[in-house]
Amino acid sequence: MDSERIIRVERDILGKNNAIAADNRTLFAADELLVFNLMSSPGAGKTSLLVRAVSELKLSYPTGVIGGDQQTSNDAERIRAVGVPAIQVNTGKGCHLDAAMIGEAYRRLPRLTHGILFIENVGNLVCPAAFDLGEACKIVVLSMTEGEDKPLKYPDMFAASSLMVINKIDLASLLECDLDKTVGYARRANPKIEVVTVSARTGEGFGALYTWIDRQVAHQRRAVEGAGQ
Amino acid sequence: MDSERIIRVERDILGKNNAIAADNRTLFAADELLVFNLMSSPGAGKTSLLVRAVSELKLSYPTGVIGGDQQTSNDAERIRAVGVPAIQVNTGKGCHLDAAMIGEAYRRLPRLTHGILFIENVGNLVCPAAFDLGEACKIVVLSMTEGEDKPLKYPDMFAASSLMVINKIDLASLLECDLDKTVGYARRANPKIEVVTVSARTGEGFGALYTWIDRQVAHQRRAVEGAGQ
Repeated sequence: MDSERIIRVERDILGKNNAIAADNRTLFAADELLVFNLMSSPGAGKTSLLVRAVSELKLSYPTGVIGGDQQTSNDAERIRAVGVPAIQVNTGKGCHLDAAMIGEAYRRLPRLTHGILFIENVGNLVCPAAFDLGEACKIVVLSMTEGEDKPLKYPDMFAASSLMVINKIDLASLLECDLDKTVGYARRANPKIEVVTVSARTGEGFGALYTWIDRQVAHQRRAVEGAGQ
Repeated sequence: MDSERIIRVERDILGKNNAIAADNRTLFAADELLVFNLMSSPGAGKTSLLVRAVSELKLSYPTGVIGGDQQTSNDAERIRAVGVPAIQVNTGKGCHLDAAMIGEAYRRLPRLTHGILFIENVGNLVCPAAFDLGEACKIVVLSMTEGEDKPLKYPDMFAASSLMVINKIDLASLLECDLDKTVGYARRANPKIEVVTVSARTGEGFGALYTWIDRQVAHQRRAVEGAGQ
Protein backbone atom coordinates (compact mmCIF):
# COMPACT_ATOMS: atom_id res chain seq x y z
CA MET A 1 0.00 0.00 0.00
CA ASP A 2 1.41 3.32 -1.10
CA SER A 3 1.18 5.84 1.74
CA GLU A 4 1.28 8.73 -0.74
CA ARG A 5 -1.83 7.27 -2.30
CA ILE A 6 -3.59 7.21 1.11
CA ILE A 7 -2.64 10.84 1.72
CA ARG A 8 -3.90 11.78 -1.78
CA VAL A 9 -7.25 10.06 -1.13
CA GLU A 10 -7.57 11.69 2.31
CA ARG A 11 -6.90 15.07 0.71
CA ASP A 12 -9.54 14.35 -1.94
CA ILE A 13 -12.09 13.35 0.71
CA LEU A 14 -11.46 16.47 2.80
CA GLY A 15 -11.42 18.67 -0.33
CA LYS A 16 -14.75 17.33 -1.52
CA ASN A 17 -16.18 17.67 2.01
CA ASN A 18 -15.00 21.28 2.26
CA ALA A 19 -16.70 22.17 -1.04
CA ILE A 20 -20.03 20.76 0.21
CA ALA A 21 -19.52 22.48 3.59
CA ALA A 22 -19.18 25.78 1.71
CA ASP A 23 -22.50 25.06 -0.05
CA ASN A 24 -24.11 24.29 3.33
CA ARG A 25 -22.73 27.57 4.72
CA THR A 26 -24.33 29.49 1.81
CA LEU A 27 -27.63 27.72 2.47
CA PHE A 28 -27.48 28.47 6.22
CA ALA A 29 -26.60 32.13 5.53
CA ALA A 30 -29.57 32.47 3.17
CA ASP A 31 -31.82 31.26 6.00
CA GLU A 32 -29.94 33.47 8.52
CA LEU A 33 -29.48 30.32 10.55
CA LEU A 34 -26.83 29.89 13.24
CA VAL A 35 -25.34 26.39 13.21
CA PHE A 36 -23.38 24.72 16.02
CA ASN A 37 -21.51 21.43 15.61
CA LEU A 38 -21.38 19.58 18.98
CA MET A 39 -18.64 17.00 19.40
CA SER A 40 -17.55 14.82 22.33
CA SER A 41 -16.61 11.35 23.49
CA PRO A 42 -19.49 8.87 23.58
CA GLY A 43 -21.44 9.41 26.77
CA ALA A 44 -20.28 12.94 27.59
CA GLY A 45 -23.93 13.94 27.62
CA LYS A 46 -24.46 15.84 24.35
CA THR A 47 -28.06 14.62 23.95
CA SER A 48 -29.08 15.33 27.56
CA LEU A 49 -27.52 18.77 27.21
CA LEU A 50 -29.40 19.40 23.95
CA VAL A 51 -32.74 18.16 25.30
CA ARG A 52 -32.49 20.71 28.10
CA ALA A 53 -31.10 23.53 25.93
CA VAL A 54 -33.58 23.26 23.04
CA SER A 55 -36.53 23.08 25.47
CA GLU A 56 -35.51 26.58 26.58
CA LEU A 57 -34.11 28.03 23.34
CA LYS A 58 -37.18 27.11 21.28
CA LEU A 59 -39.05 29.82 23.24
CA SER A 60 -36.72 32.44 21.67
CA TYR A 61 -35.59 30.94 18.34
CA PRO A 62 -36.79 28.45 15.73
CA THR A 63 -34.65 25.49 16.75
CA GLY A 64 -33.75 22.15 15.15
CA VAL A 65 -31.31 19.27 15.58
CA ILE A 66 -29.47 16.90 13.24
CA GLY A 67 -27.92 14.00 15.16
CA GLY A 68 -25.37 11.40 14.07
CA ASP A 69 -24.82 7.92 15.46
CA GLN A 70 -23.56 4.70 13.96
CA GLN A 71 -26.93 3.12 14.79
CA THR A 72 -30.32 3.90 16.44
CA SER A 73 -32.60 6.94 16.26
CA ASN A 74 -32.83 7.24 20.06
CA ASP A 75 -31.36 10.74 20.16
CA ALA A 76 -33.72 12.27 17.59
CA GLU A 77 -36.66 10.73 19.45
CA ARG A 78 -35.51 12.36 22.70
CA ILE A 79 -35.29 15.75 20.95
CA ARG A 80 -38.66 15.39 19.20
CA ALA A 81 -40.23 14.47 22.56
CA VAL A 82 -39.66 18.08 23.71
CA GLY A 83 -41.30 19.47 20.57
CA VAL A 84 -38.23 20.30 18.49
CA PRO A 85 -37.74 18.92 14.96
CA ALA A 86 -34.85 16.46 14.67
CA ILE A 87 -33.35 14.32 11.92
CA GLN A 88 -31.21 11.29 12.77
CA VAL A 89 -28.35 10.32 10.47
CA ASN A 90 -27.00 6.78 10.90
CA THR A 91 -23.39 6.58 9.77
CA GLY A 92 -23.17 2.76 9.83
CA LYS A 93 -19.40 2.04 9.87
CA GLY A 94 -18.64 5.77 9.77
CA CYS A 95 -16.95 7.58 12.63
CA HIS A 96 -18.05 11.17 11.90
CA LEU A 97 -20.69 13.24 10.12
CA ASP A 98 -19.70 14.82 6.81
CA ALA A 99 -21.00 17.88 5.01
CA ALA A 100 -23.02 15.89 2.45
CA MET A 101 -24.95 14.11 5.23
CA ILE A 102 -25.79 17.48 6.80
CA GLY A 103 -26.84 19.08 3.50
CA GLU A 104 -29.16 16.16 2.82
CA ALA A 105 -30.62 16.07 6.38
CA TYR A 106 -31.08 19.86 6.45
CA ARG A 107 -33.38 19.69 3.43
CA ARG A 108 -35.64 17.31 5.40
CA LEU A 109 -36.04 19.74 8.35
CA PRO A 110 -38.74 22.45 8.44
CA ARG A 111 -37.40 25.95 7.66
CA LEU A 112 -35.65 27.48 10.69
CA THR A 113 -35.23 31.06 9.40
CA HIS A 114 -33.43 33.30 11.96
CA GLY A 115 -33.09 30.21 14.11
CA ILE A 116 -30.53 27.81 15.54
CA LEU A 117 -29.54 24.40 14.24
CA PHE A 118 -27.57 22.08 16.50
CA ILE A 119 -25.63 19.26 14.91
CA GLU A 120 -24.86 16.45 17.33
CA ASN A 121 -21.86 14.65 15.88
CA VAL A 122 -20.94 10.96 16.35
CA GLY A 123 -19.36 10.44 19.79
CA ASN A 124 -15.66 10.54 18.92
CA LEU A 125 -12.92 12.91 20.12
CA VAL A 126 -10.78 12.37 17.02
CA CYS A 127 -12.28 12.17 13.53
CA PRO A 128 -15.11 14.77 13.64
CA ALA A 129 -12.56 17.55 14.31
CA ALA A 130 -11.29 17.31 10.70
CA PHE A 131 -14.67 17.68 8.98
CA ASP A 132 -16.20 21.10 8.33
CA LEU A 133 -20.00 20.74 8.14
CA GLY A 134 -20.68 24.38 7.28
CA GLU A 135 -21.27 25.31 10.94
CA ALA A 136 -20.64 28.74 12.49
CA CYS A 137 -18.80 27.20 15.47
CA LYS A 138 -17.64 23.85 16.75
CA ILE A 139 -18.42 23.12 20.42
CA VAL A 140 -16.63 20.36 22.33
CA VAL A 141 -18.47 18.81 25.27
CA LEU A 142 -16.23 17.18 27.88
CA SER A 143 -17.64 15.51 30.96
CA MET A 144 -15.99 15.79 34.38
CA THR A 145 -15.82 12.01 34.57
CA GLU A 146 -13.41 11.74 31.62
CA GLY A 147 -10.40 13.18 33.48
CA GLU A 148 -8.52 16.43 32.97
CA ASP A 149 -5.94 15.09 30.52
CA LYS A 150 -8.22 14.72 27.48
CA PRO A 151 -7.31 18.09 25.88
CA LEU A 152 -3.64 17.06 26.00
CA LYS A 153 -4.32 13.68 24.44
CA TYR A 154 -6.79 14.85 21.76
CA PRO A 155 -5.61 18.41 21.05
CA ASP A 156 -7.07 18.70 17.51
CA MET A 157 -10.63 18.58 18.85
CA PHE A 158 -9.95 21.41 21.31
CA ALA A 159 -7.99 23.45 18.76
CA ALA A 160 -10.96 23.27 16.36
CA SER A 161 -13.60 24.32 18.94
CA SER A 162 -14.75 27.84 19.88
CA LEU A 163 -16.38 26.68 23.12
CA MET A 164 -15.71 23.90 25.60
CA VAL A 165 -18.77 22.87 27.63
CA ILE A 166 -17.71 20.93 30.72
CA ASN A 167 -20.67 18.73 31.65
CA LYS A 168 -21.60 16.61 34.70
CA ILE A 169 -20.32 19.32 37.04
CA ASP A 170 -22.78 17.97 39.64
CA LEU A 171 -20.40 14.99 40.03
CA ALA A 172 -17.33 17.22 40.57
CA SER A 173 -17.14 16.76 44.33
CA LEU A 174 -17.10 12.96 43.93
CA LEU A 175 -14.30 12.83 41.37
CA GLU A 176 -10.60 13.50 41.38
CA CYS A 177 -10.85 15.55 38.17
CA ASP A 178 -9.26 19.01 38.49
CA LEU A 179 -11.37 21.61 36.68
CA ASP A 180 -8.65 24.28 36.53
CA LYS A 181 -6.21 21.79 35.03
CA THR A 182 -8.80 20.75 32.42
CA VAL A 183 -9.25 24.37 31.34
CA GLY A 184 -5.50 25.01 31.37
CA TYR A 185 -4.84 21.97 29.18
CA ALA A 186 -7.61 22.99 26.74
CA ARG A 187 -6.02 26.46 26.45
CA ARG A 188 -2.66 24.92 25.59
CA ALA A 189 -4.37 23.45 22.51
CA ASN A 190 -6.41 26.61 21.89
CA PRO A 191 -5.66 29.80 23.87
CA LYS A 192 -8.91 31.40 22.65
CA ILE A 193 -11.31 28.61 23.66
CA GLU A 194 -14.20 29.81 25.82
CA VAL A 195 -15.48 27.64 28.68
CA VAL A 196 -18.79 27.08 30.42
CA THR A 197 -19.45 24.44 33.09
CA VAL A 198 -22.88 22.84 33.28
CA SER A 199 -24.84 19.93 34.59
CA ALA A 200 -27.33 18.66 32.02
CA ARG A 201 -28.94 16.71 34.87
CA THR A 202 -29.54 19.58 37.30
CA GLY A 203 -29.53 22.56 34.89
CA GLU A 204 -26.65 24.27 36.73
CA GLY A 205 -24.68 26.61 34.45
CA PHE A 206 -27.14 26.73 31.54
CA GLY A 207 -27.60 30.50 32.02
CA ALA A 208 -23.98 31.03 30.96
CA LEU A 209 -24.46 28.72 27.98
CA TYR A 210 -27.53 30.69 26.80
CA THR A 211 -25.62 33.96 27.25
CA TRP A 212 -22.85 32.59 25.03
CA ILE A 213 -25.40 31.47 22.41
CA ASP A 214 -27.22 34.85 22.50
CA ARG A 215 -23.85 36.53 21.94
CA GLN A 216 -23.21 34.37 18.85
CA VAL A 217 -26.68 35.25 17.52
CA ALA A 218 -26.04 38.98 18.06
CA HIS A 219 -22.64 38.66 16.40
CA GLN A 220 -24.15 36.92 13.37
CA ARG A 221 -26.94 39.50 13.03
CA ARG A 222 -24.39 42.35 13.13
CA ALA A 223 -22.41 40.57 10.42
CA VAL A 224 -25.54 40.17 8.24
CA GLU A 225 -26.49 43.86 8.75
CA GLY A 226 -22.92 44.92 7.96
CA ALA A 227 -22.98 42.89 4.75
CA GLY A 228 -26.37 44.42 3.82
CA GLN A 229 -25.18 48.04 4.13
CA MET B 1 -14.43 11.82 -5.58
CA ASP B 2 -15.21 8.28 -6.65
CA SER B 3 -16.73 6.35 -3.74
CA GLU B 4 -15.61 3.06 -5.28
CA ARG B 5 -12.07 4.40 -5.13
CA ILE B 6 -12.48 5.15 -1.40
CA ILE B 7 -13.81 1.65 -0.74
CA ARG B 8 -10.90 0.16 -2.71
CA VAL B 9 -8.36 2.15 -0.68
CA GLU B 10 -10.09 1.20 2.59
CA ARG B 11 -9.94 -2.45 1.56
CA ASP B 12 -6.25 -2.09 0.72
CA ILE B 13 -5.54 -0.46 4.09
CA LEU B 14 -7.36 -3.20 6.03
CA GLY B 15 -5.80 -5.93 3.87
CA LYS B 16 -2.29 -4.64 4.50
CA ASN B 17 -3.08 -4.24 8.22
CA ASN B 18 -4.38 -7.81 8.43
CA ALA B 19 -1.20 -9.18 6.85
CA ILE B 20 0.96 -7.38 9.43
CA ALA B 21 -1.42 -8.48 12.22
CA ALA B 22 -0.84 -12.10 11.13
CA ASP B 23 2.94 -11.50 11.38
CA ASN B 24 2.45 -10.04 14.88
CA ARG B 25 0.36 -13.07 15.85
CA THR B 26 3.18 -15.40 14.72
CA LEU B 27 5.67 -13.35 16.74
CA PHE B 28 3.45 -13.44 19.85
CA ALA B 29 2.87 -17.19 19.47
CA ALA B 30 6.64 -17.79 19.25
CA ASP B 31 7.02 -15.97 22.58
CA GLU B 32 3.93 -17.76 24.00
CA LEU B 33 2.61 -14.33 24.81
CA LEU B 34 -1.06 -13.57 25.48
CA VAL B 35 -2.09 -10.23 23.98
CA PHE B 36 -5.19 -8.19 24.88
CA ASN B 37 -6.33 -5.13 22.91
CA LEU B 38 -8.20 -2.71 25.23
CA MET B 39 -10.56 -0.26 23.59
CA SER B 40 -12.99 2.35 24.97
CA SER B 41 -14.22 5.92 24.77
CA PRO B 42 -11.75 8.53 25.98
CA GLY B 43 -11.92 8.69 29.76
CA ALA B 44 -13.51 5.31 30.41
CA GLY B 45 -10.54 4.55 32.64
CA LYS B 46 -8.38 2.12 30.61
CA THR B 47 -5.13 3.44 32.05
CA SER B 48 -6.32 3.46 35.67
CA LEU B 49 -7.60 -0.07 35.17
CA LEU B 50 -4.27 -1.17 33.66
CA VAL B 51 -2.18 0.49 36.39
CA ARG B 52 -4.07 -1.53 39.00
CA ALA B 53 -4.16 -4.76 36.98
CA VAL B 54 -0.49 -4.88 35.93
CA SER B 55 0.63 -4.10 39.50
CA GLU B 56 -1.02 -7.38 40.48
CA LEU B 57 -0.48 -9.48 37.35
CA LYS B 58 3.27 -8.77 37.20
CA LEU B 59 3.60 -10.98 40.31
CA SER B 60 2.37 -13.97 38.25
CA TYR B 61 3.36 -13.18 34.64
CA PRO B 62 5.95 -11.14 32.73
CA THR B 63 3.75 -8.17 31.81
CA GLY B 64 4.07 -5.22 29.43
CA VAL B 65 1.97 -2.47 27.89
CA ILE B 66 1.85 -0.67 24.53
CA GLY B 67 -0.34 2.44 24.71
CA GLY B 68 -1.71 4.64 21.96
CA ASP B 69 -2.77 8.29 22.14
CA GLN B 70 -2.82 11.10 19.63
CA GLN B 71 -0.38 13.00 21.88
CA THR B 72 1.49 12.72 25.23
CA SER B 73 3.31 9.85 26.90
CA ASN B 74 1.39 10.25 30.17
CA ASP B 75 -0.08 6.76 30.07
CA ALA B 76 3.21 4.92 29.57
CA GLU B 77 4.72 6.94 32.41
CA ARG B 78 1.89 5.86 34.73
CA ILE B 79 2.48 2.20 33.81
CA ARG B 80 6.27 2.43 34.17
CA ALA B 81 5.77 4.04 37.61
CA VAL B 82 4.47 0.66 38.89
CA GLY B 83 7.50 -1.17 37.50
CA VAL B 84 6.05 -2.55 34.27
CA PRO B 85 7.67 -1.87 30.87
CA ALA B 86 5.55 0.34 28.60
CA ILE B 87 5.93 1.86 25.13
CA GLN B 88 3.85 4.85 24.10
CA VAL B 89 2.80 5.23 20.47
CA ASN B 90 1.64 8.71 19.41
CA THR B 91 -0.73 8.48 16.47
CA GLY B 92 -0.77 12.24 15.71
CA LYS B 93 -3.86 12.75 13.53
CA GLY B 94 -4.64 9.01 13.71
CA CYS B 95 -7.74 7.67 15.44
CA HIS B 96 -6.61 4.07 16.09
CA LEU B 97 -3.55 1.85 16.48
CA ASP B 98 -2.64 -0.36 13.53
CA ALA B 99 -0.72 -3.62 13.35
CA ALA B 100 2.47 -2.00 12.01
CA MET B 101 2.64 0.36 15.01
CA ILE B 102 2.28 -2.62 17.37
CA GLY B 103 4.91 -4.72 15.55
CA GLU B 104 7.39 -1.87 15.76
CA ALA B 105 6.61 -1.03 19.43
CA TYR B 106 6.77 -4.72 20.45
CA ARG B 107 10.36 -4.96 19.21
CA ARG B 108 11.26 -2.15 21.64
CA LEU B 109 9.85 -3.97 24.71
CA PRO B 110 11.90 -6.46 26.75
CA ARG B 111 11.03 -10.14 26.02
CA LEU B 112 7.83 -11.18 27.81
CA THR B 113 7.99 -14.93 27.18
CA HIS B 114 4.97 -16.76 28.69
CA GLY B 115 3.64 -13.37 29.68
CA ILE B 116 0.87 -10.90 29.00
CA LEU B 117 0.95 -7.85 26.76
CA PHE B 118 -1.81 -5.26 27.09
CA ILE B 119 -2.40 -2.91 24.19
CA GLU B 120 -4.24 0.25 25.24
CA ASN B 121 -5.82 1.60 22.07
CA VAL B 122 -6.64 5.24 21.27
CA GLY B 123 -9.83 6.29 23.11
CA ASN B 124 -12.44 5.84 20.39
CA LEU B 125 -15.51 3.57 20.28
CA VAL B 126 -15.56 3.40 16.47
CA CYS B 127 -12.37 3.06 14.42
CA PRO B 128 -10.22 0.69 16.55
CA ALA B 129 -12.85 -2.06 16.19
CA ALA B 130 -11.90 -2.56 12.53
CA PHE B 131 -8.16 -3.06 13.06
CA ASP B 132 -6.72 -6.44 14.00
CA LEU B 133 -3.43 -5.90 15.87
CA GLY B 134 -2.59 -9.60 16.22
CA GLU B 135 -4.16 -9.81 19.68
CA ALA B 136 -5.74 -12.92 21.23
CA CYS B 137 -8.82 -10.96 22.35
CA LYS B 138 -10.30 -7.52 22.15
CA ILE B 139 -11.65 -6.09 25.42
CA VAL B 140 -14.05 -3.13 25.48
CA VAL B 141 -14.06 -0.97 28.61
CA LEU B 142 -17.27 0.98 29.19
CA SER B 143 -17.72 3.26 32.17
CA MET B 144 -20.98 3.49 34.11
CA THR B 145 -21.03 7.25 33.46
CA GLU B 146 -21.39 6.83 29.68
CA GLY B 147 -25.00 5.58 29.78
CA GLU B 148 -26.47 2.19 28.95
CA ASP B 149 -27.18 2.93 25.26
CA LYS B 150 -23.59 2.86 24.00
CA PRO B 151 -23.65 -0.80 22.82
CA LEU B 152 -26.71 0.05 20.69
CA LYS B 153 -25.08 3.12 19.17
CA TYR B 154 -21.63 1.61 18.57
CA PRO B 155 -22.40 -2.09 18.00
CA ASP B 156 -19.25 -2.92 15.98
CA MET B 157 -17.03 -2.35 19.01
CA PHE B 158 -19.10 -4.74 21.15
CA ALA B 159 -19.44 -7.31 18.36
CA ALA B 160 -15.62 -7.40 18.04
CA SER B 161 -14.90 -7.82 21.76
CA SER B 162 -14.67 -11.03 23.82
CA LEU B 163 -15.03 -9.22 27.15
CA MET B 164 -16.80 -6.05 28.28
CA VAL B 165 -15.34 -4.51 31.43
CA ILE B 166 -17.81 -2.09 33.01
CA ASN B 167 -15.74 0.40 34.99
CA LYS B 168 -16.53 3.08 37.60
CA ILE B 169 -19.02 0.76 39.30
CA ASP B 170 -18.35 2.70 42.53
CA LEU B 171 -20.39 5.56 40.98
CA ALA B 172 -23.36 3.31 40.13
CA SER B 173 -25.57 4.44 43.02
CA LEU B 174 -25.18 8.10 41.96
CA LEU B 175 -26.09 7.59 38.31
CA GLU B 176 -29.23 6.71 36.40
CA CYS B 177 -27.36 4.14 34.30
CA ASP B 178 -29.04 0.71 34.31
CA LEU B 179 -26.43 -2.06 34.47
CA ASP B 180 -28.74 -4.86 33.34
CA LYS B 181 -29.80 -2.83 30.32
CA THR B 182 -26.16 -2.13 29.43
CA VAL B 183 -25.39 -5.85 29.48
CA GLY B 184 -28.56 -6.68 27.55
CA TYR B 185 -27.72 -4.15 24.84
CA ALA B 186 -24.14 -5.43 24.56
CA ARG B 187 -25.47 -8.99 24.10
CA ARG B 188 -27.71 -7.81 21.26
CA ALA B 189 -24.51 -6.84 19.41
CA ASN B 190 -22.64 -9.94 20.63
CA PRO B 191 -24.52 -12.75 22.42
CA LYS B 192 -21.21 -14.35 23.53
CA ILE B 193 -19.62 -11.30 25.14
CA GLU B 194 -18.49 -11.92 28.71
CA VAL B 195 -18.90 -9.20 31.34
CA VAL B 196 -17.07 -8.13 34.48
CA THR B 197 -17.87 -5.02 36.54
CA VAL B 198 -15.03 -3.22 38.28
CA SER B 199 -13.94 -0.01 39.91
CA ALA B 200 -10.40 0.93 38.95
CA ARG B 201 -10.51 3.43 41.81
CA THR B 202 -11.53 1.08 44.65
CA GLY B 203 -10.37 -2.26 43.23
CA GLU B 204 -13.86 -3.78 43.44
CA GLY B 205 -14.37 -6.60 40.92
CA PHE B 206 -10.73 -7.11 39.94
CA GLY B 207 -10.81 -10.69 41.27
CA ALA B 208 -13.27 -11.62 38.52
CA LEU B 209 -11.10 -9.86 35.93
CA TYR B 210 -8.01 -11.84 37.03
CA THR B 211 -10.03 -15.08 36.95
CA TRP B 212 -11.02 -14.30 33.36
CA ILE B 213 -7.40 -13.54 32.43
CA ASP B 214 -6.11 -16.73 34.12
CA ARG B 215 -8.69 -18.67 32.11
CA GLN B 216 -7.41 -17.14 28.86
CA VAL B 217 -3.84 -18.06 29.86
CA ALA B 218 -4.87 -21.66 30.61
CA HIS B 219 -6.77 -21.82 27.32
CA GLN B 220 -3.76 -20.59 25.36
CA ARG B 221 -1.39 -23.06 27.09
CA ARG B 222 -3.71 -25.96 26.33
CA ALA B 223 -3.79 -24.82 22.68
CA VAL B 224 0.04 -24.67 22.55
CA GLU B 225 0.35 -28.13 24.17
CA GLY B 226 -2.27 -29.49 21.77
CA ALA B 227 -0.33 -28.12 18.81
CA GLY B 228 2.93 -29.64 20.17
CA GLN B 229 1.55 -33.19 20.47
